[in-house]
This record gives sequence, C-alpha cells and structure tokens, in this order.
Amino acid sequence: MRLKVKDVKLSTGGPYVAILNTEDAEKLDLNPLDRVRLTTDGRELVVFLDISKKGIKPGQIGLFEEVLKALKLRNNNLINVYHQKKPESIYLIRKKLSGDKLNGKEIEEIVKDVVVNKLSAVDLTYFVSACYTRELDDNEVLALINAMVRYGGSLGIKQKMILDKHCIGGVANNRTTMLVVPIVAAAGYTIIKTSSRSITSPSGTSDTMEVLSPVALNRDKIKKVVKKTNACMVWGGAVELASADDAFINIERVLSLDPEGMLLASILAKKKSVGSTHVLIDIPVGIGAKFEDMKKARRLSKRFASIGKKLGMRIKTIITDGSQPVGNGIGPVLEARDVLAVLNGNGPEDLRNKALHMAGLLLEMTGAKDGKKLSTEILDSGRALKKMRQIIKAQGGNPNITPDRLVPGRHRYDVCAEKDCIIRGINNKNVSKLARIAGAPKDKAAGVYLHYHVRQRIKKGDAMFTVYAENKRKLEFVKDFLSKVKVIEGC
Amino acid sequence: MRLKVKDVKLSTGGPYVAILNTEDAEKLDLNPLDRVRLTTDGRELVVFLDISKKGIKPGQIGLFEEVLKALKLRNNNLINVYHQKKPESIYLIRKKLSGDKLNGKEIEEIVKDVVVNKLSAVDLTYFVSACYTRELDDNEVLALINAMVRYGGSLGIKQKMILDKHCIGGVANNRTTMLVVPIVAAAGYTIIKTSSRSITSPSGTSDTMEVLSPVALNRDKIKKVVKKTNACMVWGGAVELASADDAFINIERVLSLDPEGMLLASILAKKKSVGSTHVLIDIPVGIGAKFEDMKKARRLSKRFASIGKKLGMRIKTIITDGSQPVGNGIGPVLEARDVLAVLNGNGPEDLRNKALHMAGLLLEMTGAKDGKKLSTEILDSGRALKKMRQIIKAQGGNPNITPDRLVPGRHRYDVCAEKDCIIRGINNKNVSKLARIAGAPKDKAAGVYLHYHVRQRIKKGDAMFTVYAENKRKLEFVKDFLSKVKVIEGC
Repeated sequence: MRLKVKDVKLSTGGPYVAILNTEDAEKLDLNPLDRVRLTTDGRELVVFLDISKKGIKPGQIGLFEEVLKALKLRNNNLINVYHQKKPESIYLIRKKLSGDKLNGKEIEEIVKDVVVNKLSAVDLTYFVSACYTRELDDNEVLALINAMVRYGGSLGIKQKMILDKHCIGGVANNRTTMLVVPIVAAAGYTIIKTSSRSITSPSGTSDTMEVLSPVALNRDKIKKVVKKTNACMVWGGAVELASADDAFINIERVLSLDPEGMLLASILAKKKSVGSTHVLIDIPVGIGAKFEDMKKARRLSKRFASIGKKLGMRIKTIITDGSQPVGNGIGPVLEARDVLAVLNGNGPEDLRNKALHMAGLLLEMTGAKDGKKLSTEILDSGRALKKMRQIIKAQGGNPNITPDRLVPGRHRYDVCAEKDCIIRGINNKNVSKLARIAGAPKDKAAGVYLHYHVRQRIKKGDAMFTVYAENKRKLEFVKDFLSKVKVIEGC
Repeated sequence: MRLKVKDVKLSTGGPYVAILNTEDAEKLDLNPLDRVRLTTDGRELVVFLDISKKGIKPGQIGLFEEVLKALKLRNNNLINVYHQKKPESIYLIRKKLSGDKLNGKEIEEIVKDVVVNKLSAVDLTYFVSACYTRELDDNEVLALINAMVRYGGSLGIKQKMILDKHCIGGVANNRTTMLVVPIVAAAGYTIIKTSSRSITSPSGTSDTMEVLSPVALNRDKIKKVVKKTNACMVWGGAVELASADDAFINIERVLSLDPEGMLLASILAKKKSVGSTHVLIDIPVGIGAKFEDMKKARRLSKRFASIGKKLGMRIKTIITDGSQPVGNGIGPVLEARDVLAVLNGNGPEDLRNKALHMAGLLLEMTGAKDGKKLSTEILDSGRALKKMRQIIKAQGGNPNITPDRLVPGRHRYDVCAEKDCIIRGINNKNVSKLARIAGAPKDKAAGVYLHYHVRQRIKKGDAMFTVYAENKRKLEFVKDFLSKVKVIEGC
C-alpha cells in the first residue's frame, strides 16, 4: 500500500513507530504492535505500528521523528508499506519463556535486536519475564554479558590490570567507592569506576560525586582523567556501556523486578566493558537492604565467582552488614561531606573502617600483603586525600573543597528522643525514603544526618537525627511521613 | 507542576497517554511508562507517560484525544501534574509472576484495572507471562471467568436452557457451527452462537457467515434475531463480551502464546456472558491442528469439565480427528458453499457427518434420546435449511441464496497429481496458509478447493485441488509458495 507521510511532530526517544488510520489498518489486516516495512527511494526501515482513529486520515501514515530522519522523509512524501515478519529473536524469547535454555548465539541475537530497537516494549517484557521465571544459568548469563559488551559501548582502555569495586546497594550512604578509589589509586593501581545515578535511592555514587566534580564525562575525557590520575569516578550513563541493559532496566522497573541472572549480567557487563580485571563486590545483607536473606546473598556470591572465572575476571565478594546505614549523612551533599571528612582524618568511623577493609581486600587480590595496613597508611598519611584532589581536579571540579564548605539545606528539623533509650535499629528503606521526601537527590543539599547509630545510647531530648531541606514545604511532607513511619527502632 | 496542554491531535485507541518534554520529566524524576495524575477543575485522571525530545516544549504537556475528552481540555488549558503510585494490581501481577497463587478478589482487581485501562501494555505482558509460566489452576481460571463476565458486556438474555458449541480451531473449513446451529434451533432449542473473525486462519466462522448475512449485530438486534428464530450466528467482537479478554489476546498474539488457563477462561467467559447452559466443545487433534498432542487435548478436556461444573454449566468435550480439513472449500465463499450444499442434501460427506454427530451430542446433553437420528431427520427433511433461511433473513441477509450463487474467485489454478497415487495427508497449516496467500479471508471469494481427501486415490493428471483468487498477482504468490511447500502428502 502506498501512503502519504504525515509528520506527527513527536519523537519516541528510540523505537521506530508509524501510525496508520484504523481503516487502512483493517484493509491491511494489521494490528497495533505489528511490524511493517517502509520503503522509499532505495531506503527501507522496519517500524512498529500504532493505530489511530483520529489525526491520521485514510491514505496517510503518521511518522515520528526517528523514522523521518532514518528514511529522510518529509510531509506528503509517498512511501510503500509492507507486512514484515517477526524477527527470529521473537521466537527465541518464546523459547526461553517456555522453559528451554538459550545458547550463546541465540542470546546474542536477542541482545543485538534490543540494541538496534527491533524489539518493542512488549517483546522486552516477555524477555524480562522469561529471565525472571526461567532463571538464566551461568552459561546464559555469560552469553548475555558477552553480547551486551559486544553490542554496547566500551571505553577502549586496555591494561593488564584494572581494579574495580561494586556494591549491590540498598544501604543508605555506604559511600565506600569515594574512599576505596583514591586509596587504591594512591597505591599505584588503575581503578576505573563507573557508577549509576539514583533510581529510587536518595543518592547514587554519581549524585554524591557530582557534588565535588562533574561526572558526565565522555570517553575521551575519561581516558585523559585515567591517564593523569590512574582513576576516575564517573557516571556510567554518559558513556552508554552495555546499552541493552538500560532497555532491560526500564522494563524491570515497572514491576520492580530484579532477575538474578540479569543482575549478574548487568553488573559484570559494565565491568567488562571498562576492562576491569580484579573486582571486589560488596553484598550488604540486612533488613531494609536489597538482600534481606543470607541464603540468597550466598548464592549470588557463588555465582559471581563462577561466572567471573569463565569471564577471565578475578572476582571477590564480601557479604557485609546491611542492617543500618554506613556513615552519618544521607543525601548527596551530606554524603560527600562524610567522605571528605574521612579523607581528612575525622569522618564517621563505620564508613572509614568499611572502606579500609574493602580497599585492603582489593589490594590483596593483586597479590599485596596485609592490604588493610597498607590502606590505612595511605589514608592516614594524606596520600588518599591528595589523590582525591587530583581526581576532582582532572574531572573538572574544585580540588580545594573542604568538608565545612559542604553545607546542608537551610531548613532543618531535629528529631529527638522522647526518653533515655538505646537504638535497636535504623531502617534503611525508611531513612532513604525520608531523605527523598526531603528533596534528595535532586536537591543536592537535602537529606538526613544520623547523630547516632545502632546500639548507641541516647538521652531524652537529644537529637537522634536531623532532616535538611532546601524548601520549607518539603519539611512539612517530612513531618507528615514521620508521623506515620518509624525510622529508628528502640527510641 | 503546572503545565500547558498541547493537543497532539492523535488518539491511542484506548489507553490514556500524556507526553512530557525530556527536561520536565527529569525535573519531576519521571520515566516513560510511569503513571501521573492530572487534575483540572475538580476532574482528575491517571495517565501513562511518554517522554519526547521533540514536539512538546518544556512547560507543555502533550495529550491524546482520550485524555482531552475525559478531562474536557483544550489547547493551552493549564493542568496540574502529580506523581501517581502504581495500582495494587501491579503488585498482584508481580505476585503471580513470582509463582504465588491469586485468589478471586485479587484476580478481579487485575481484570477490573484491565477493563478501565489502568494497565499498560507492559503490565499486561507481565500478566500474560505470569499466566503462561505459572499456570492458572482451576480456581484461578474460575475467578478469571467470573471477573471477565462481571467487567465485560453480557447479552442480557436469560433462559433456563441455552445451547452452545465451540471448536478449539486449527482445522481448515470445519464449519460445523453453521450446520449445528440450524439443526438444534429447528429441534426447538435456543442456541446463541458468537464467533470470532479470522486472526491467522483463512476464515473464521464470522467471516464465512458474513457471506450469507451481516454478523456485526448489536445487542438489541441479536435479541430480536434470537426471539424470532431461537438462534443467531454473530461476530462476538461487535458486542464486546469479556472485553478484558481482547486486551489479553492482543498481547498473546505478539508471541503467539496461548496459555491454557487463559484459553479456558477466554472461551468460557464468552459462553457465560451469553447465558449458555449446555456447551459442546470440539477439540480437534492432529498434525497441523492447534493440538498435535493427544495428552494435552485430554488434559484440556478434563479441565473444561471440572471448571464447567464449578460454573454451573454443562460441558461436554469431544476430541476429533484434526489431521486434515473437514469439508472441501477453504475460504469464506467456498466454505459457505459447502454449508449450503449440506443443508440442500448434497455437500461434503465428512462435514455433514461431523455436524450431525455434534448436533446429536448437543441434543442428547439436554436429555434427548438418539440425537444423531433426530439431527439426521431434521437435516434430511429440509427443516434445518428452512431454519437457516430464517436466521439469514433475521440477521439481514438474503434467505434465498443457493450454493450455485456462491462463486469463487475468477482466477483459478489447478494443482494436478504427477502420478497415480493415494493421498496420505493434507497439512492443515499449509493449506490454510495457501488460502490466505490467495487472499482469504479479506477477498471473500479467494481460497482453496480440495477435490480429494486423505486415503483417496488420484489418477495422474487429475486436479488434487484448485486455488481461487480475485487478483491475478496473488496467484503468482500462490505458485511461488507451492514451489516451496508441500500441501498434499503422498502425491
């Protein structure tokens, strides 16, 4: 069928979409989500179909910006529309959903089609469902990693040894990355750390690092920073590593799913695409953390090790206490202040200890002896602070920043103990939610400051924690939330 | 956030969708597929979010026709946009996908949200995946049926006894409905038959009946036809019975899935919403039919019986030979010709016998003795033909139509035997595909006519089958297809 182009003056942000009038769709026996092939002047493109009663007349075809651009079309151009068969990847997704295993070539076929936008949101949802209900085995995860790396971006940095760390998340603050990276780099190793921004948390490592320097660096800039400092701490989203993963995450988010195999692949594909050879992975376990169940954490830990071996990557996992926040501040500015304080020798003890432990383990993975002692020397001698300043400067920030220059939101609300008491628990989920209600991560200076941690004694009337906001109205929401939800147990 | 309405001059055909500019979406921390609540002048509506770089400026919100109508909005009106929590049904879908059972109330919650367009295509896909991978048990199917009936349309016909029949499909022609209905109605029973149009087959019962009379009747018209004739044969789509089912089918189609529980619910919800009390279900089994596997067919048969009991519906299933087409013609006109020929006493024997067998069983379900004998008398006496004419007339067709007035497509292509041979098989899938390539069901007169059936002897040079088309070019596609694919085995 030959149809006249109508520019609908909208973009989809990725997928190729065309709109037919109901009448033409019936004539062509087409349904929404069907694929059609558009041809014009030797160019052709497969697009997904939307069907509209209004706006597109019979004889017209509505095209979104992406399609117009790809086919070099304008209003009133004529194009041909043909039925298009489903791609092979659809049958492979069905195969997996039916419970069969997929081999490497089959998984690669799916990932390739994801990256080139050949699959619709419905197709992707079927694939995520398949990975969730018919768990991916180690070989499938490995294939998924390799395919995501092959069809994703890579930094193109090749070194014999690149160190890396990762935390599975769910624990408030826990900003060890910003200590481990300068310590390890100061010890002379290369460590390239790409992080995410917050999705549902009050701050991702990238949001916190962004308080000190830009994090949305392009590949060339990252290479320069690494060359200069042996390290970087950047936002992974800016370099689009393992882009298929972003498509999966968008779909997973709808049902808050996190299929184990996809979690493994998501993390390791990103590590592989920056060239990491030695990776330390922190799996916090505790009520309110991402893993509340030790059994699941142990299982994940084993799978990291076995898949790492197949990838030729040295992976060490540690299961840590995720039952309460690590550090005092929650929210970008408050967390950055904790980090700088530790580097300056006077930050929260728990954050300092965890970072030293992790930096030590990572150094030992390379063959170093007594890593914790080495890390402690590097931190206490000020060499880590110096390295941090180098990194901040190389990434475009102010290297002379000090903790006292990091000022939290100007509206504050102290929550005090109503009796003498001992803190029995600090719920990670609720404290994170509280910080978000206060405005984090968008309001960088918003968040929560914990004056005490679990097992500490508080006197009646003492502030247990302080909430900071940049906007007074948000503090009202904070009070409302606190009237309904308990953040501190035992007080 | 307060935004200015922009009418995007498109409809979605159902779901409520709004489009934000990328910049505003980031400010509001919103992603595609998120839900937002729009409020204006005391009205409010929850919509799904699309995000566009182009077409919608910061400060604007693009609205589709459905949203504009629901909120009575026009270009440049101002509305408020708020975050909206996910509906409870999202968590229920997740629960099922994780392998837990759902109770009746939970399933009702999901179906209700489907019907009022509260769920996106991604949400629906998760639900279909859940039903496919975590099979629905009888109680869940029952709950799904009751919910689909409650939140779908019903004909509102209440009688002590309403007969019905259904075929699981996959066998070419097999147009028993158009014989069973007039026979049973002529015997004095009420039989209300809603059928589907073809989705992937060369003709659905509705497409074939449409050759003889209109089938897209509204409720009032159907009631009048039933009152006048005791029967009807109409397109179910026109009365939107069990509308949630249509939403599920749209999603199932993408991966050609047919989860057993949803198949059971889809069929029985439609039966229940027309008030059927006695239902005969035909499950053809054979290579190329929907069920190739006797075990699966037996399992389905048992589940029909047990769920029917719980529904208070008498259901009888028969497993029939689905290894070859039933009747000679394939395609709307050719099938209608077969049916009229049987009613006139000279149609294909296999179609006649199967219809008499089924009509007999259905009559016996009501307590009649020797149903096959009774059916045969009704057919041979011409009473069934008379009843068929009444129905055709009541539905608005020409009651005096005769088989010779049903002329197949004017372009024909005979496929002849290359040697003396005996037909060993006729592949349902391939012969259906052939008829579709020839133009069926859209070209009503296109299709395939089988001169022989399985186990019949053919002489060299005799036509095994003839392909009819209304358009010469399609006959070229037919020849191309036949050069690659075997329709007849053994010759």
